[in-house]
Amino acid sequence: MRLSARVEIEIINTGSELLLGRVLNTHQQFLCRRFTDAGATVRRLTCVPDNGAAIEGAVRDALACADIVVTTGGLGPTSDDRTRDYIAGLLGAKLVVNETVLSRIENWFGGRKRPMPASTTIQAQVPEGAIVLLNEHGTAPGLIMEVSAGRFRDAQSWLVMLPGPPRELRPMFDSQVLPWLRNQFPTSAGFVCRTLKTSGIGESRVEEIIAPKLHELVQRGLEIGYCARTGEVDVRFVARGNGCETIAIEAETITRRLLGDCVFGADDEQLEETVVRLLTERKEWLALAESCTGGFIANRITNVPGASAVLWGGGVTYANDAKVRLLGVREETLREHGAVSEAVAREMAEGARRIAKSDYAIAVTGIAGPSGGTKDKPVGTVFIALATANDVQVKRALNNFDRETFKYISSQQALDMLRRALLAAHAGK
Amino acid sequence: MRLSARVEIEIINTGSELLLGRVLNTHQQFLCRRFTDAGATVRRLTCVPDNGAAIEGAVRDALACADIVVTTGGLGPTSDDRTRDYIAGLLGAKLVVNETVLSRIENWFGGRKRPMPASTTIQAQVPEGAIVLLNEHGTAPGLIMEVSAGRFRDAQSWLVMLPGPPRELRPMFDSQVLPWLRNQFPTSAGFVCRTLKTSGIGESRVEEIIAPKLHELVQRGLEIGYCARTGEVDVRFVARGNGCETIAIEAETITRRLLGDCVFGADDEQLEETVVRLLTERKEWLALAESCTGGFIANRITNVPGASAVLWGGGVTYANDAKVRLLGVREETLREHGAVSEAVAREMAEGARRIAKSDYAIAVTGIAGPSGGTKDKPVGTVFIALATANDVQVKRALNNFDRETFKYISSQQALDMLRRALLAAHAGK
Repeated sequence: MRLSARVEIEIINTGSELLLGRVLNTHQQFLCRRFTDAGATVRRLTCVPDNGAAIEGAVRDALACADIVVTTGGLGPTSDDRTRDYIAGLLGAKLVVNETVLSRIENWFGGRKRPMPASTTIQAQVPEGAIVLLNEHGTAPGLIMEVSAGRFRDAQSWLVMLPGPPRELRPMFDSQVLPWLRNQFPTSAGFVCRTLKTSGIGESRVEEIIAPKLHELVQRGLEIGYCARTGEVDVRFVARGNGCETIAIEAETITRRLLGDCVFGADDEQLEETVVRLLTERKEWLALAESCTGGFIANRITNVPGASAVLWGGGVTYANDAKVRLLGVREETLREHGAVSEAVAREMAEGARRIAKSDYAIAVTGIAGPSGGTKDKPVGTVFIALATANDVQVKRALNNFDRETFKYISSQQALDMLRRALLAAHAGK
Repeated sequence: MRLSARVEIEIINTGSELLLGRVLNTHQQFLCRRFTDAGATVRRLTCVPDNGAAIEGAVRDALACADIVVTTGGLGPTSDDRTRDYIAGLLGAKLVVNETVLSRIENWFGGRKRPMPASTTIQAQVPEGAIVLLNEHGTAPGLIMEVSAGRFRDAQSWLVMLPGPPRELRPMFDSQVLPWLRNQFPTSAGFVCRTLKTSGIGESRVEEIIAPKLHELVQRGLEIGYCARTGEVDVRFVARGNGCETIAIEAETITRRLLGDCVFGADDEQLEETVVRLLTERKEWLALAESCTGGFIANRITNVPGASAVLWGGGVTYANDAKVRLLGVREETLREHGAVSEAVAREMAEGARRIAKSDYAIAVTGIAGPSGGTKDKPVGTVFIALATANDVQVKRALNNFDRETFKYISSQQALDMLRRALLAAHAGK
């Protein structure tokens, strides 16, 4: 089920902190992506400060152009949370107490055994006639209001107000706004957007391999996009109208055949999810030994629900001492080769696998920077080891980026090494 | 040197990828922050797709309201880079070849020994009369155009066009746009923006405590903003004009006195940075024992440059077995109390501190969900232990959120517990 591509959306983020540059606005990307994937068109994004004239002006302008106007922020309990009031004023709606919301707010504080400040109850005041979106992760409800035809433009339109905190907005959008949207604007045009995620291959090489073989599908309406992201390349297929699903499936089949195991997943699948899925299918266990990635690989894996069935655990062995005492790396090896070396990576992986009695162990040791580099081992040098029942492989890479990107790319290389080993072991069975 | 607070800015980001939700817009925060810190007021942000009507409409609207309108993107060589042309058209300016830019583009390709695609030279076409901002990190120049009074509003205004890639835009802004701006709009009013970051206290409670005591400063022009972020609450003070520094300092002093050690930092400081800073000052070492946070605390700490001077390392002990073998937790304790218990948290912290011979050890064990909860210990239950030379404290919390938020909030509570212990130990000395 997709929305008509003709549904036009405008998004307005309210919040003075955005215009002061104190906060990164991540709502735009989230909301645009969700609407686009549902087949709608986002025509404009606006951010305005928390003041009445600015919010009213932006909402008025947007309602004159779009079928649906979404606002974010300004629904909370403090004195600068005024979006609800300004919009109710603009639409001439009276604020009334919603008993369901009020009792949920009381329960929210009760469950957390925290006193409820009086200002909190203001969040239970909703414009008369509004559809109330209950907040599963906070106290401020979302609101949907119908705006009659003739008010700001000839046609009817809708105003959707969402709370500012991303962990409240995102689940509310997925579980309540999207279903409402699909119901209100039923399918009238086909739309498919499919992303294949690859690792271990560059963007232009991907295009070189697949573009010639997709030529015929492009003539039938396939749109291809390439996006080089940190440590991976995405290939995006978009098709519209009748038969779009067939075109997208054909494109995916051809691409998977040509790129083989460079494709690790589709759409939003992350590499850690692929790895947990493969380990779970095989009922195998993983242990970790992280130095320079400092727990980042463990963190990625434990973000995946069900990780406890495949991850034994491991050591974050930042100090040399920790490598010796937690993983049994020999002091002699550290002295002779240094902590950032093939030999130490190997002993870390072997040690982790031995202590955990696991099927696999990954070890990473390197120089994240900004300091600590030498001529032979410059900042960005990393050794990644994978221990299996058969052997230990070690790869050396140079990831000369800022600290967090270094950790991300190194973790991506380590997870990809494990993924390929899991696929190879399976193919051999 | 500050700009007049009366200088009003509008920013327009062009790029269809933004409205498709395929790219995170980081320009807004960068530009807003720079303008704000220079004393200007950003009044609105807009994003529009790469099409003539949308770009022209947005620029026209903005020029009717602001002293300076900044656009980003659409200056490059490909077919969707049309911002320069649309704007030249809107302002009735002829495009002419700029010889300096042309020869720089030729040198850019020559220096990289790459053939120069013909389309590239289009970037040397600039609107007649424009100030050209040379690009040190790419080929497309930035442009500044004067818009005469009476054209879109009564007063004169300026249009600043910047290239889209952040690594081109940011240095160009700092080295060329800011100096131009300070010259064009010389100092006439002060401006201060200060954010205090708090933890362990809710947003409405913060307001309840501080607002009454800041009343007099608000009457003298202080603006206060509250922003609830995951696991922390920011309090933002803005003051403008003569004496603004004094007002901001007074507000900060009063707030710090009222909120005590709930204030953990200011402006961009993250809690992990505070903790690394405090440990570094005291030359003390930390060890970690993470179960449900799965390496996330280690990851946060190792994101801070210099972490290797204070973090020994630790165990990511997901399986029970890992708690026993890496940290020396007793099997009996696990059997009697379960892995998620005060007793196990305590033994994890003690074990980590003993093995690491560190000053402090943090241990976290809990149920991240979505499954694994029981009546006594529902999903979200977490035990956080802090072992010091004197004792082990254990706190129990209920963080019933999605998996990643659970990890974030639990890590925030653990880091905050350590931060308060470090401050208390210091105060006692």
